[in-house]
Amino acid sequence: MENGHGCARATKDVSLQELRDTLAEFSKVRGWDQYHSPRNLLLALVGEVGELSEIFQWKGEVARGLPNWSSKDKEHLEEEISDVLLYLVQLADVCGLDLGQAALTKIIKNAQKYPVVNQTTSS
Amino acid sequence: MENGHGCARATKDVSLQELRDTLAEFSKVRGWDQYHSPRNLLLALVGEVGELSEIFQWKGEVARGLPNWSSKDKEHLEEEISDVLLYLVQLADVCGLDLGQAALTKIIKNAQKYPVVNQTTSS
Amino acid sequence: MENGHGCARATKDVSLQELRDTLAEFSKVRGWDQYHSPRNLLLALVGEVGELSEIFQWKGEVARGLPNWSSKDKEHLEEEISDVLLYLVQLADVCGLDLGQAALTKIIKNAQKYPVVNQTTSS
Amino acid sequence: MENGHGCARATKDVSLQELRDTLAEFSKVRGWDQYHSPRNLLLALVGEVGELSEIFQWKGEVARGLPNWSSKDKEHLEEEISDVLLYLVQLADVCGLDLGQAALTKIIKNAQKYPVVNQTTSS
Repeated sequence: MENGHGCARATKDVSLQELRDTLAEFSKVRGWDQYHSPRNLLLALVGEVGELSEIFQWKGEVARGLPNWSSKDKEHLEEEISDVLLYLVQLADVCGLDLGQAALTKIIKNAQKYPVVNQTTSS
Repeated sequence: MENGHGCARATKDVSLQELRDTLAEFSKVRGWDQYHSPRNLLLALVGEVGELSEIFQWKGEVARGLPNWSSKDKEHLEEEISDVLLYLVQLADVCGLDLGQAALTKIIKNAQKYPVVNQTTSS
Repeated sequence: MENGHGCARATKDVSLQELRDTLAEFSKVRGWDQYHSPRNLLLALVGEVGELSEIFQWKGEVARGLPNWSSKDKEHLEEEISDVLLYLVQLADVCGLDLGQAALTKIIKNAQKYPVVNQTTSS
Repeated sequence: MENGHGCARATKDVSLQELRDTLAEFSKVRGWDQYHSPRNLLLALVGEVGELSEIFQWKGEVARGLPNWSSKDKEHLEEEISDVLLYLVQLADVCGLDLGQAALTKIIKNAQKYPVVNQTTSS
């Protein structure tokens, strides 16, 4: 898949456990664990969702692939969307949840809730 | 790591590319791609962040590990935190971003912005 | 001003202090004050912003005045937008802030930050 | 009521219609109406909710009245909480809704949904 930077290949896959462990170590060596209560992290997440929304706020509809965005704007978006993910991973971690498993489980529930009506549309 | 279900082992790791591809197929076979513009997905993400917040809203401070939460409440939390992740993965995808790479890049930037002052605190 | 219900006139004005006092009494007589800490109310506000966003999430761009919305959809929107306001008023109240004065002060600051460049555009 | 600035009196009440009309004029004279579609304003609102959340994010529980906050922190809070209100008022306006009436109507609905169980608790 094209990755939005004109570089179509060879990106290393990243797992949720890898992010979780990296962030846990990041936080530990900086003495930040004391601040990482569930609700603190949740509000930090909301803050980052706000910054993500600010990127899109005055743009009207935005086309898939962001065709007219500058490299700088795309990089800013990558930073903000990542910040949301990083706090989400940490929130799940301090709650003792396995985010990856939870996500797979939720996809299965969604598939049961919204069955595919007509398989011929998928080909 | 204990995963919040009293089951300490052998959970399969989940990658962001796996989630992205699974969700892209999920959406395609249901004919939902037409609704998945960046701003539609962003607002859906905000909606799920709202549902996640509602779980925590009347609880006052919540301890790490959610010691007094029922299994049902934990499962509800897993569903809502997953919904946020699923829309975030899809938002990154329709924007043409590699979310995993973006997250690793952001962690490196954060590490440069917030250097570890005293390595002795990490051991 | 037309109020979105085909009824152009005679709507009673509503003040922020009136809402604040009404909500304070509402909460007091139900014994809810104990739950109304600043962060609880903030998370409740985020929850309502999520519900507000859900109304708009799959619609693509929406025209001013909501020309094609049903009465039922408009009423739902009125409820959710009101819920955001009600929690905002209560949050300001428990923080000891005068929301109306704060808003007027902020408008003045905004006017200084963004001066009108060309008065001829205002007529 | 004490207003958080050590000044207990004589604050002018502010109405939602006054805010709406002031903001409509503010926007008109700056040529900003073109940007004020419902979903643009909604995302701007989410952005401000994020900034509001950032104020509270690392604080743990916060007591009513913000007893240990500096004047500067309170002023920052007033600004961010006002920004949320200002976008909410503008969102309601471009949707053609009467926010004050909608809020009163919602309070009445809430009162019917949550009747006061025991009036003796209110005195």
